[in-house]
Amino acid sequence: MNTKEIQNVPHVVVIGAGFGGLRAARFLRGAPVRVTLVDRNNYHLFQPLLYQVATAGLSPNDIAYPVRAIFRRQRNFDFHLGEVTRIDPDRRIVETSTGPLDYDYLVLAPGGETNYFGNESIAEHATGLKEIGDAIHTRNRLLRLFELAAQCDDPVERRAMLTFVVVGGGPTGVEMSGSLSELIRLVLQKDFPQHDLTEARVILLEAADRLLPGMPADLAEHTVKVLERRHVEVQLNTTVSDYDGRTVRLKTGETIPARTLIWAAGIKAEGILATTGAPTARQGRLVVTPTLQIPDRPEVFVIGDAAYLEDEHGQPLPMVAPVAMQQAETAAKNIQHILAGEPLEPFRYRDPGSLATIGRNQAVAQLGRFKFTGYLAWVVWLVVHLIQLIGFRNRLIVLINWAVDYIFYQRAVRLIVPTSEEKILQREFEVQR
Amino acid sequence: MNTKEIQNVPHVVVIGAGFGGLRAARFLRGAPVRVTLVDRNNYHLFQPLLYQVATAGLSPNDIAYPVRAIFRRQRNFDFHLGEVTRIDPDRRIVETSTGPLDYDYLVLAPGGETNYFGNESIAEHATGLKEIGDAIHTRNRLLRLFELAAQCDDPVERRAMLTFVVVGGGPTGVEMSGSLSELIRLVLQKDFPQHDLTEARVILLEAADRLLPGMPADLAEHTVKVLERRHVEVQLNTTVSDYDGRTVRLKTGETIPARTLIWAAGIKAEGILATTGAPTARQGRLVVTPTLQIPDRPEVFVIGDAAYLEDEHGQPLPMVAPVAMQQAETAAKNIQHILAGEPLEPFRYRDPGSLATIGRNQAVAQLGRFKFTGYLAWVVWLVVHLIQLIGFRNRLIVLINWAVDYIFYQRAVRLIVPTSEEKILQREFEVQR
Repeated sequence: MNTKEIQNVPHVVVIGAGFGGLRAARFLRGAPVRVTLVDRNNYHLFQPLLYQVATAGLSPNDIAYPVRAIFRRQRNFDFHLGEVTRIDPDRRIVETSTGPLDYDYLVLAPGGETNYFGNESIAEHATGLKEIGDAIHTRNRLLRLFELAAQCDDPVERRAMLTFVVVGGGPTGVEMSGSLSELIRLVLQKDFPQHDLTEARVILLEAADRLLPGMPADLAEHTVKVLERRHVEVQLNTTVSDYDGRTVRLKTGETIPARTLIWAAGIKAEGILATTGAPTARQGRLVVTPTLQIPDRPEVFVIGDAAYLEDEHGQPLPMVAPVAMQQAETAAKNIQHILAGEPLEPFRYRDPGSLATIGRNQAVAQLGRFKFTGYLAWVVWLVVHLIQLIGFRNRLIVLINWAVDYIFYQRAVRLIVPTSEEKILQREFEVQR
Repeated sequence: MNTKEIQNVPHVVVIGAGFGGLRAARFLRGAPVRVTLVDRNNYHLFQPLLYQVATAGLSPNDIAYPVRAIFRRQRNFDFHLGEVTRIDPDRRIVETSTGPLDYDYLVLAPGGETNYFGNESIAEHATGLKEIGDAIHTRNRLLRLFELAAQCDDPVERRAMLTFVVVGGGPTGVEMSGSLSELIRLVLQKDFPQHDLTEARVILLEAADRLLPGMPADLAEHTVKVLERRHVEVQLNTTVSDYDGRTVRLKTGETIPARTLIWAAGIKAEGILATTGAPTARQGRLVVTPTLQIPDRPEVFVIGDAAYLEDEHGQPLPMVAPVAMQQAETAAKNIQHILAGEPLEPFRYRDPGSLATIGRNQAVAQLGRFKFTGYLAWVVWLVVHLIQLIGFRNRLIVLINWAVDYIFYQRAVRLIVPTSEEKILQREFEVQR
């Protein structure tokens, strides 16, 4: 390969190929800068559908798209594959597992990671839902447990194998528990005709007194009703205190024997942000100015889950994709304003509303002043998610997978393809028997 | 789950969910037996397209199909997920990692595994092409090496990163090297516009004096010409003696610095067959009678790669899918003949011909007395492989992926999704730098 030409324009490093980082790099397309996007993965992941990978409906590559393919036509763009290990704002250097990068401007968009609130036992034994690896691991685990349960003669152990606890009543927890219950009742029951899978339980635990905190209360109540009708046991005001891989311990002292705990209860900003030395707020987010800069570091912008900024009511902006995407636009514009010697723009969030699907024909939606539930909300959910996917092929294939699932009650991807974590689980069960 | 009903019919255990095992279990659909299919994976893998997973054209689940989904409607069928650890023909027991199974009749169809001919260094450092894990590992490795090469300033190291050696001139080696060369020249070159990928080399090594041993010599010569036109360096009469992960050593003493060696040079029957204590022939295959039984074990049938049987010219039957599928039919019929007290049928192979694709618009085909090459052969190859896939969804999605690749020069699945092996490679490079 040829050595890169040295270009005499400012170098913008963007950390993270999520919703924010991707959009920031794109918005700098016409700017007089060269852009380097850094990520530990070579793809952008459409996280809102990750739970469908975990429940065997979609394949990982249906919701992932190679970064280089997205930017094929952007001439001032390069990609750097590597894990960011340190950010040094004094020397203006980002250190990565594959070498250092110096920058003139930095856009920090590393996103969030699962927050286990310091409980190491839960972190070790629960499965998260943030990365492709998490989803494949969860899928392998669920499917393997049904196979093992089919071979198991001990009713107590079998029940623990078939008890799936989902923690966290936000959209991820709601969508995961609804989809898992459908997988069991509508798909796996046909795969195991000799066995009665009504023994299997899906339990959704939420510490607060309601589900879907970002949505109106009546939609949350509707969601509980639909989930319960679909055999998900919803328990509100219920806090998990510990999990050892076999028993879920609640704060009340109660226990639930379960071989699977899916943790969708918390998120925090990526730990790497702490290496900047800049002040952090709740959930490890970096405090930013209204123009999205770190105080006293005008060349460093922070967006998305990584940024802490309050709205006009003093509430922190939520850790959701629309915030990250809108902030990306502001950050990219502000870099260009600095280069042009113009005043910077403050960020202002326009809330597009929110959606959550509970499964087949059922969703809840709030779009501006409109609230709706049921079939219409479900169709809106489908369309919104299909449109947001990157790439014609991915849209088409996701649509086909959804149609096959809807019509034939088949989840196409119910494959057990062992990963490293999975091999450990596999061995554990092998030794046991 | 309910305890299985004890059925007073003979129990047939089929080992292996490949082409042979699957078909044997299916052919016993109407027989007065209960069938248990055992496999370490919960899916049937369409191995002929595995090289397309390795070269980022298809997703693993496009060519894999859940065993339980295939047999949803077969009432005398059950599946047992587990690795076979021992076969005991005296006690009529198959031991697996998830418990023992006793049988009245046994169909051994475990298939083949990669044969490194006892060279442990090659086995450790080369990548095979037999399982989904192999293909994902190879894909990750190829894509990561291009990313690392883009970051590398040492021209010698970069050249080794971009040298891909494929060993074995059978259909797998031909298809792999052709597809890899296209991935580099037609797809990745667009992903790395700042870099000149003509530096990358794909080298196909074959120990014999020709490619495609099962095909007429003129088709093999045509294949060499097309491969070379497509920038694959074909070296015949070339034997690899060793590989340490950095340097390919040839028998002549020559060396090729290369960070990737893809081994498609040998196959042998699954090692588990040796535990039967029955006599084996070349490549660890079990010697069978013309009725496909182990001598003196009339209740044990062996089919496919696992079985050693000679044709009327004294040549061993090849280790290919059509042999396995036809033998499955004979074995299933013979079990029913035994149950009915009828004489058994000898196996007779009807060769359906063979096909290999060299890439875009190019293949070679021999069907009965007809030989053809080029576009027509390529279309035949496409149709034959699409038809053989299991499931409407998989056919449709493979077709879409092929069309997107053909029209847009996009390989959809160029994702690096680290597996356990990949993490080791990753660390190696990280420490190095």
